Amino acid sequence: MNVLIIGANGQIGQHVVRKIQESSGHNAIAMVRKEEQKAKFEEQGVKTALVDLEGSIETIANAAKEADAVVFTAGSGGHTGADKTVMIDLDGAIKSMEAAKQAGVKRFIIVSAIGVHHRDRWMNSAPYYSAAKHYADVWLEKSGLDYTIIRPGGLTNEPGTGKVKVAVDLGYGKIPREDVAAAIVASLENSQTIGKSFDMIGGETLIEDALKTL
Amino acid sequence: MNVLIIGANGQIGQHVVRKIQESSGHNAIAMVRKEEQKAKFEEQGVKTALVDLEGSIETIANAAKEADAVVFTAGSGGHTGADKTVMIDLDGAIKSMEAAKQAGVKRFIIVSAIGVHHRDRWMNSAPYYSAAKHYADVWLEKSGLDYTIIRPGGLTNEPGTGKVKVAVDLGYGKIPREDVAAAIVASLENSQTIGKSFDMIGGETLIEDALKTL
Repeated sequence: MNVLIIGANGQIGQHVVRKIQESSGHNAIAMVRKEEQKAKFEEQGVKTALVDLEGSIETIANAAKEADAVVFTAGSGGHTGADKTVMIDLDGAIKSMEAAKQAGVKRFIIVSAIGVHHRDRWMNSAPYYSAAKHYADVWLEKSGLDYTIIRPGGLTNEPGTGKVKVAVDLGYGKIPREDVAAAIVASLENSQTIGKSFDMIGGETLIEDALKTL
Repeated sequence: MNVLIIGANGQIGQHVVRKIQESSGHNAIAMVRKEEQKAKFEEQGVKTALVDLEGSIETIANAAKEADAVVFTAGSGGHTGADKTVMIDLDGAIKSMEAAKQAGVKRFIIVSAIGVHHRDRWMNSAPYYSAAKHYADVWLEKSGLDYTIIRPGGLTNEPGTGKVKVAVDLGYGKIPREDVAAAIVASLENSQTIGKSFDMIGGETLIEDALKTL
């Protein structure tokens, strides 16, 4: 499977690219914005697409045309301004969905954030961030694409444990970015995750087994 | 017809309230956020609902329960921060649509902005503003409500002329806020505007006649 990773240079994205390259039968196409990012991935033997997510749907669709799946891990992270949150987390995500459709790619996996499907759990400090994630998720659910929406808890840089807890609704918890990436790759290989949206935190169950409970 | 005006204290909202009160057979319910705004409208004999648009859908639905139509004219105006744009122009609008549905109100008229249905016409200086308006409009089109989406050009405080130009796509032009308000009230009385989304600028055609061409 050829997988276009949008946001490949991000903290989760880099894990996703590496895990896809390490897996058998998958190839990553790292979508990046800057020449130096492109060079870095190419040195690692990773195929790249130089595309600005704030550009046109057509340029994103062009990057997706050799892909069998799109993984959207781009995100302003909640620490940039609200303007970038709208243009990346909301509009960038929606453009990517439309681009996938234009390119005939059915499979689409997005990284959202825990609890954003409940307005009363939106971040007090940055409700616009939760709103942007939520509306992108809703758009995807209505897109007709074969979607998986992963809503991880608080992201850490701890090494992955390979074990998680997943459910439609979970209380707050943390999870290593590496485990989020592993769950993305496992979802690509598990058609049972199609049409599913779920919270995910660190847990006691192997990722592959956890995804089977959805 | 009882009409809930969300954003009643705004520049367009105040014109809408006045025109509805002057019309025969309609009554305004001015939804406002502050006690002093409520007092001001009540002094003018206008019914009010004291509701924070950044609050719950239920409180908005409660304000809508005696209404036959909802007019959404609230807006951060593109001059506040992007965070408020997301929470008012996008999330506030969508919550109002959900509230209308909860309250059993079918008719919903929203004030959008010229050209936002074309990404290449989004404001360079504030694309997040155009994005927020656009996604609220798309949500409304898919809501199942009896919608009208009015996308006026550059708003002025000139006195209304009662004459406009309307079409799905128009080049940029200006229009007095008073004429936007008049078009809202005329749309309430014209079922032909249901399910229509259109640009509107100042023109040569009487508002009532212009709306019939849609």
